[in-house]
Amino acid sequence: MQNTTFRFFKEQLARLAGGYKLDVPACPVKLNQNENPYDWPATLKQAVFEHVREQDWNRYPPFVPQEFTARVARYLNVDPTQVLVGNGSNELLYAIFVATLETGRKVVIPQPTFTLYKLLAELLGAQVITTGLGPDMQYDAAALETAARDASVVVLASPNNPTGSVINPMDLEHLVQTTSALWVVDEAYFEFHGETALELVRTCPNLVVLRTFSKAFATAGLRFGCMVCHPDALTMFAAAKLPYNLNIFTMAAVEVAIEHAVTLKGRLEEIKRERERVTRLLKASKGVHVYPSRANFLLFETDRNPRALWQSMVNRGVLTRDVSGYPGLGKALRVSIGRPEENDAFLKALEYAITEVPPEAKS
Amino acid sequence: MQNTTFRFFKEQLARLAGGYKLDVPACPVKLNQNENPYDWPATLKQAVFEHVREQDWNRYPPFVPQEFTARVARYLNVDPTQVLVGNGSNELLYAIFVATLETGRKVVIPQPTFTLYKLLAELLGAQVITTGLGPDMQYDAAALETAARDASVVVLASPNNPTGSVINPMDLEHLVQTTSALWVVDEAYFEFHGETALELVRTCPNLVVLRTFSKAFATAGLRFGCMVCHPDALTMFAAAKLPYNLNIFTMAAVEVAIEHAVTLKGRLEEIKRERERVTRLLKASKGVHVYPSRANFLLFETDRNPRALWQSMVNRGVLTRDVSGYPGLGKALRVSIGRPEENDAFLKALEYAITEVPPEAKS
Repeated sequence: MQNTTFRFFKEQLARLAGGYKLDVPACPVKLNQNENPYDWPATLKQAVFEHVREQDWNRYPPFVPQEFTARVARYLNVDPTQVLVGNGSNELLYAIFVATLETGRKVVIPQPTFTLYKLLAELLGAQVITTGLGPDMQYDAAALETAARDASVVVLASPNNPTGSVINPMDLEHLVQTTSALWVVDEAYFEFHGETALELVRTCPNLVVLRTFSKAFATAGLRFGCMVCHPDALTMFAAAKLPYNLNIFTMAAVEVAIEHAVTLKGRLEEIKRERERVTRLLKASKGVHVYPSRANFLLFETDRNPRALWQSMVNRGVLTRDVSGYPGLGKALRVSIGRPEENDAFLKALEYAITEVPPEAKS
Repeated sequence: MQNTTFRFFKEQLARLAGGYKLDVPACPVKLNQNENPYDWPATLKQAVFEHVREQDWNRYPPFVPQEFTARVARYLNVDPTQVLVGNGSNELLYAIFVATLETGRKVVIPQPTFTLYKLLAELLGAQVITTGLGPDMQYDAAALETAARDASVVVLASPNNPTGSVINPMDLEHLVQTTSALWVVDEAYFEFHGETALELVRTCPNLVVLRTFSKAFATAGLRFGCMVCHPDALTMFAAAKLPYNLNIFTMAAVEVAIEHAVTLKGRLEEIKRERERVTRLLKASKGVHVYPSRANFLLFETDRNPRALWQSMVNRGVLTRDVSGYPGLGKALRVSIGRPEENDAFLKALEYAITEVPPEAKS
């Protein structure tokens, strides 16, 4: 295939092709995607089917799903004029970037973080400014303030993936109010932390908060997310989003999820307790450094080769995430918090892997 | 709200905000969105529920749904390496545009056509080159060839919405082979026509065909579409598309749809017969000009004010589409082909409306 055949692609596409991949061997203990380990109860699945059964599948969903959006807004305790809904928060981040980024513009992305932010920004031709994290993977507010001065957009996750660290709310308020960049705060793991920037959105038109139902709500298979922003900014963001983007299934499932939020999120306390238990046990493990986390996963480092460690655990049926390719995380793995017995299986597999994989020579 | 607050939006956003709207009063006879008038049978809905019930809703769908994509490819009789799947073909068109368009690039869009093409192209900063249609709303191959020389992308729908006209296959082959632009052919209404450009995709890396399950397959509520392109181009397009974009519901429904394609598309012959019947009756109506259509809708013009005509029919419970805002269609309405009794209701409502609404003075 000659390159000339493809002159219609933007220049950056060739660099990005195949940039975000996921290697997922089948393992009985799956702790690689920060999923909620508990499936929906059969009764709630059935409730969704009953909702969907009565609808006309041959008809388009509403152009703008106003009633549905109002229900989501009520759940979030914000105004419906502040909410846009999407197939996962990724779809909304994509729309936000299309609305704000192009060649010649800059976006600040603290690293390490979720891989997709940088890939999407580069896809749109933006220049990515990387800031590092401070001690214990904490956000560096001073570095963010300096970098934001020159940028159109700043994206940060709080809690951050894969570090589990959070932005200090006072720092965030200061940053949003003293810069004119758009601040996108991805709160995918909010429910495992408890602090949100939603209040700030009411008064700050340069702040967007992303939420997802994939984690705490155990609905990763349904791909639902939403964004909350200032009403004056919403019509602009909406223009970058496709109409009819949510299908009737997703909307029915989210309505049932909200109605039964207590049931679906009932395991949150257990997951948080397990997070603390696994943290303590990893801290006590020789040769393991674990970072404090406010999410449903833990980042840890060892002096072993991370890929070999990952493979050794896979061989014992435990799938974690090798994040050693992330900036600054050369020795790190990430493990989701699963059911207690899954976490025990992970701890055992890690212990075995450390005996199996020899320490790497210091470079 | 001061503009300075929003300096992070791209310049074109303010122009595009609110650009694509749909006015949908509730009417018993709904002929405004080119939907299939027949809902899924209850047994097939139940089959989808059984598929979905057994799955883990708390787990992400596959990063790249290979088995599912292979099934769609088999249905289309193309290779799986040629297929990308999305939430409606709109999502794939968006990805195609992100992969190819930016400020400084040109896209050719023959008008009148589906509104979204132009909006998405302008969203990405591209310059839109408009070519007109020829007599009876037929594509003008010579005009397309000239315009394409200077463009990155050409988008056309065949059958075209809202005109019902199609591109001549010989013309298309010549255009694709003699230009280096990317040709995007939206075949949303393929099944009502029968001719496809899919064969051409095997040998032409600068051609993409879009398909949807929303029309013939009666699954508009599910938002499923796919694109077929050359394998060498697919990895590049894939980089502009989000991972995990399809949820488990959509995939289950599409699998059932393909398995029961004969049932779901069983009404196609009736719809095509009805299209010919309604065309004949409109042709016989005094003061109505109807265009030949290869889709499941008809474009027609009268000497009445189209908005007043539309409103008069709404008042009688029949919802059509006022397309008089489209370039060159100042006197036109579009009506979907529904069930025979719905089409009769439309014909009656139109007859009444023409007596109710006085002719407009010629300008």
